[in-house]
Amino acid sequence: MNIRLYNARILTMEEGAEIFEGEVLIQNDRILYVGEKDSEAVFQNTWDREIDCKGNLLMPGFKDAHTHSGMTLLRSHADDLPLDEWLNHQIFPVEARMTGEDIYELSRLAALEYLTSGITAVFEMYLTPETIADAFDHMGMRCVQVGGINNFGGTMQEMEERYQKLNHKSPLQSYMLGFHAEYTCSKALLEQVSALAHKYQAPVFTHLAETENEVMGCRERYGMSPMAFLDSLGIFDYGGGGYHCVYMTADDIAIMKEKGLFAVTNPASNLKLASGIAPVTDFLKSKVRVAIGTDGPASNNCLDMFREMFLVTALAKFREKDASAVDAMEVLKMATVNGSYAMGLVDTDVLAAGKLADMIMIDLHQPNMQPLNNIAKNLVYSGSKQNVVMTMIHGKILYENGKFTACDPEEIYERAEKIRNRIGS
Amino acid sequence: MNIRLYNARILTMEEGAEIFEGEVLIQNDRILYVGEKDSEAVFQNTWDREIDCKGNLLMPGFKDAHTHSGMTLLRSHADDLPLDEWLNHQIFPVEARMTGEDIYELSRLAALEYLTSGITAVFEMYLTPETIADAFDHMGMRCVQVGGINNFGGTMQEMEERYQKLNHKSPLQSYMLGFHAEYTCSKALLEQVSALAHKYQAPVFTHLAETENEVMGCRERYGMSPMAFLDSLGIFDYGGGGYHCVYMTADDIAIMKEKGLFAVTNPASNLKLASGIAPVTDFLKSKVRVAIGTDGPASNNCLDMFREMFLVTALAKFREKDASAVDAMEVLKMATVNGSYAMGLVDTDVLAAGKLADMIMIDLHQPNMQPLNNIAKNLVYSGSKQNVVMTMIHGKILYENGKFTACDPEEIYERAEKIRNRIGS
Repeated sequence: MNIRLYNARILTMEEGAEIFEGEVLIQNDRILYVGEKDSEAVFQNTWDREIDCKGNLLMPGFKDAHTHSGMTLLRSHADDLPLDEWLNHQIFPVEARMTGEDIYELSRLAALEYLTSGITAVFEMYLTPETIADAFDHMGMRCVQVGGINNFGGTMQEMEERYQKLNHKSPLQSYMLGFHAEYTCSKALLEQVSALAHKYQAPVFTHLAETENEVMGCRERYGMSPMAFLDSLGIFDYGGGGYHCVYMTADDIAIMKEKGLFAVTNPASNLKLASGIAPVTDFLKSKVRVAIGTDGPASNNCLDMFREMFLVTALAKFREKDASAVDAMEVLKMATVNGSYAMGLVDTDVLAAGKLADMIMIDLHQPNMQPLNNIAKNLVYSGSKQNVVMTMIHGKILYENGKFTACDPEEIYERAEKIRNRIGS
Repeated sequence: MNIRLYNARILTMEEGAEIFEGEVLIQNDRILYVGEKDSEAVFQNTWDREIDCKGNLLMPGFKDAHTHSGMTLLRSHADDLPLDEWLNHQIFPVEARMTGEDIYELSRLAALEYLTSGITAVFEMYLTPETIADAFDHMGMRCVQVGGINNFGGTMQEMEERYQKLNHKSPLQSYMLGFHAEYTCSKALLEQVSALAHKYQAPVFTHLAETENEVMGCRERYGMSPMAFLDSLGIFDYGGGGYHCVYMTADDIAIMKEKGLFAVTNPASNLKLASGIAPVTDFLKSKVRVAIGTDGPASNNCLDMFREMFLVTALAKFREKDASAVDAMEVLKMATVNGSYAMGLVDTDVLAAGKLADMIMIDLHQPNMQPLNNIAKNLVYSGSKQNVVMTMIHGKILYENGKFTACDPEEIYERAEKIRNRIGS
């Protein structure tokens, strides 16, 4: 299907690009044209649909660079509890009862929520990769899964098979190497992960330095920070990165810089679980690329890139006692371009001819976007899900003017509610 | 107009109340009935409109307990700057060029945004109270203004006249005594404010202990914290409270408790301007009532109670390193009941027969509200403007399913944009 979106403001997110007025042509799954010209004059009239954007903003979709989608079951299941009690007595017991089919349904529920927030791709780590890939594929959503192996679940053989199989499953699904965290993996297991990374010359992702306890534990075990210890095993020799990255020393950050690693920040989860505030300005000063994730809905509890974007800069301002820290355009880059690259998606970063058509429309005809002093700053400081009026993935419009165009949300809600009634309460 | 809202979930916000299924009857500006029974059997069928709530949630509207609505002009006008440069070189010069008519238009723009966030009343401090009262009156919105006198603007005579006049202007408008802040008022002026408070036995509100600098300055000037100094002048002898309240000692909090003062917290603004995090758990432990405000759109930049609610509890959890700090129901109470009482509105606190009909409907048929583990926690941790499908003030529905029912938003946007073009850039 070929779609012409005209009368738009456009933020391509290309380096240094300014917002301009123009149009975007979509040809099947890719962008054919982005520019100021009237495409009527450039291309023959072959579009199946024309959309008058009414001056609203087109931009690349947001990339949620760390999430556990199936945990929608556990949203508001148990909040306002100390971390240990929450995890060991409320989260783990319910997770142990979840089947692959449950996770399929719960991931579809999450996909609906991503669409409402303009999230077009997610970096997912959860329990049953096969049914997760099916869920996102059936929803038409881009998903990059990452291995979550640890002492209590998964085998290296499974991870390697998935690396081969899920990377060729469909144009929307891919898979990267990973493990749950240093504190849940033996040294022997981590050495195997490193060997696999070397075999495929592949990047590796993991939960990294989320809490102070975790870092202290690693120092007791190995006399090194998690970052230094994992690096000493060669795990990051082909890149990758860490989720959370709250407690990072200058030396840790130097390793990230040297290895070209991504720091994926999860500010809402880090506040809500009382973990801390990541040193985002330190990453930026060291040229470590930062991406943004929501974390799973048990610990956040929503999958909303607008809340995360505001928090990334607002918490940096607070942490540094500097109201000028981390400007809005930098945050937008984290939420789009950097997230895309972290996930190994080289063609969903910006709006440009030849790129994949993962794009959103932001309603500027809402009071929170007025007046139009600075649209980029409005997006980061004032934007909300309510402003997302279109989410397109791989050239298909999946969410438009508050409606899901490719599925029945009530059916998905009902299935999630059934699962909750069976195992969630 | 009499309206029946049936097939609803209802959160009355009365002390200890649980969410139940039932209906609400509105008779003109007040609530006639809230309960489980079929009102058909209780009352004769006299409603002008029946609304099937489809299982969605009815609850009291949010009260934005500190804002400067006219600053919509300055939303995203100048962010990511050090505080001094922002205030002195970007904010003050533009404000100096704003007329009362401008502030009328800009307040109307803010009112639209409040409606989208389910905010039914605001506690407003800004430059031209007469045109602000007109703006909110014409928008059908409840507004309690507070005096903002300081060394650079306003007279005591004006404040007293407004106290008499604006409190009787309309059922939607009221006015309370106040001043801008200790650091912008001479001791002589503050003594006059205290005298006026004593004359009318009236509560007084002010910006209080927002920044560390402000507190240090007061200690240098008077050898006391702002709270202790203002209290020594008798300003709070009839109650009132402070906006922000970030830097408060145990002694300060004891004064607030003794005088029955409200602490109005503004978490987004305090982060974005790098001011700090208010000691909300300390207020709660001392039984000081906390209300929530957005602050003005220059420093936030949006007028969104959902973002503030999440921040109140998430920042408390971070500050106390305790994931169980400030539970969700406590936050909802701050955003509704406490805000109402802070503003002197005794009849907009809860949903109950005889109370004013200031009510909102929350769409639970959205993915961020599913599954229905715990609706109150969903609201605080996962809720967003997108969930507000109805905002009713004084018995009138002003916002419904994304549409403003009583005004043309585009006309308001155009007027704001004209003002921006004239003086804002």
